[in-house]
Amino acid sequence: MSSVTPSESAAGQLGAAALPIGVFHSGVGGLTVLRALREALPGESFVYLGDTARLPYGTKSPGTITRYALGAAGALVERGIKLLVVACNTVSAVAIDELQAALPGLPVVGVVEPGAQAAVLASGSGRIAVIGTESTIRGGAYTRAITALRPDAVVSGRACPLFVALAEEGWIEGPIPEAVAREYLTSLVADVDTLVLGCTHFPLLVGAIRRIVGPELAIVDSAATTAAAVASLLHLHGMLGPSAPPRCIMLATDGRERFARVGSGFLGLPLSAEAIEIVDL
Amino acid sequence: MSSVTPSESAAGQLGAAALPIGVFHSGVGGLTVLRALREALPGESFVYLGDTARLPYGTKSPGTITRYALGAAGALVERGIKLLVVACNTVSAVAIDELQAALPGLPVVGVVEPGAQAAVLASGSGRIAVIGTESTIRGGAYTRAITALRPDAVVSGRACPLFVALAEEGWIEGPIPEAVAREYLTSLVADVDTLVLGCTHFPLLVGAIRRIVGPELAIVDSAATTAAAVASLLHLHGMLGPSAPPRCIMLATDGRERFARVGSGFLGLPLSAEAIEIVDL
Repeated sequence: MSSVTPSESAAGQLGAAALPIGVFHSGVGGLTVLRALREALPGESFVYLGDTARLPYGTKSPGTITRYALGAAGALVERGIKLLVVACNTVSAVAIDELQAALPGLPVVGVVEPGAQAAVLASGSGRIAVIGTESTIRGGAYTRAITALRPDAVVSGRACPLFVALAEEGWIEGPIPEAVAREYLTSLVADVDTLVLGCTHFPLLVGAIRRIVGPELAIVDSAATTAAAVASLLHLHGMLGPSAPPRCIMLATDGRERFARVGSGFLGLPLSAEAIEIVDL
Repeated sequence: MSSVTPSESAAGQLGAAALPIGVFHSGVGGLTVLRALREALPGESFVYLGDTARLPYGTKSPGTITRYALGAAGALVERGIKLLVVACNTVSAVAIDELQAALPGLPVVGVVEPGAQAAVLASGSGRIAVIGTESTIRGGAYTRAITALRPDAVVSGRACPLFVALAEEGWIEGPIPEAVAREYLTSLVADVDTLVLGCTHFPLLVGAIRRIVGPELAIVDSAATTAAAVASLLHLHGMLGPSAPPRCIMLATDGRERFARVGSGFLGLPLSAEAIEIVDL
């Protein structure tokens, strides 16, 4: 989370409160974060950018992810935003420092830090499992963020790429997602008390995951925790929006029909393909 | 398939026979085609390019796919190749005409046309099912290619994106791939006698698929049929390679470790990450 003060903020100089919140993801996954943000901040406007032409970021190298993220963030900043939510675990894990350095004065909130804070609060034993994409797990950002807050924490991780495909296919309940969850999670969660859903696609599968891991385990959904962090930050900086009717603009870099079809399930609202603006990064 | 003659061929002017065959795919999937090519043409050298920085192409729009394919093909042509295999159903379905127009004199072989020919040969009833990525199925290239050869054919299609994720995860046998195959295929194949694996990832799952569709159905693997088409074309044009020790160069645009790890299963040979050259398109 950024430590800028309102007086330093470029957004503040532009009449920050009335500007929308920018939300960025490699595809539709960040719509679960947008959903949580809209619930937590019903008076705010949002502009969401899904870099669908170049998804998924999760299998790409840190250098490529950083380059793509800087381009996408720049496109949102050009439109005027008061705060940037990096609603993508891969980018939050890999490129958050570079984004904050490149955008002086703009608060930048990732999903890793709020998820790590929530995990540490939820865990009694300090034994925490994190699931995500390959690059999120390989990069170890959750482990670093959790152990920075609780040095004796023991963090185990597993990449669960099938969960991404299941969420996009809409196969979120029934024997197939449960069998996949059993394969990925049974040994992973044997010795932990908290499971962090370190990918924005995974909240869609929380029902199947819960049935496999049982009722005792704490499941941390970083979408909800990120929305709470954004609400606190806006309040702290005096940047909460006016009570004007909020707007929600949807941008994508490719494939508006697929964005609308798959994204509706993620956002929990029907999306119309015509309402999605295609931008070139 | 290109209709160029040897005398028109740029490769021919450069001493075609000794040059390698270029093989292009959005990622590691085309390694199943390279595997079939190496088996069919053990004396040939190959240069394979996986555009791993921008994969998957299957969810992208035709315009984006064409732009990426032209860039990747250009990089292979610059290295010197005698023939280009578009070992990617998505690109073969969407951009083969643009590639052939952009590369005059170079034979360009896609995977759709050989797969369609094999399907028409295999099918008695003319009722044929095709499975692939979203863009391959939506684009309808197999349907067009099959009905061009057999106008009374009835072609049904289904996008099976979970098969891609299962192949990349290496979960190719057991209850999970069989449950996914059952969900995707049971109603699709109820009334057909031939199933075309219209994605280069799918041959890895042929065991699980066979167990679901039963022993009677003909399964067409476009990797093997494409390799046979390339062998015929080289023979016809007098462009078969010399009996020098063949080489196989591997290029990728990102992530050599993942390319080596996942690609080894696709190629059927251990790949070393150090042997994979990263190129910038």
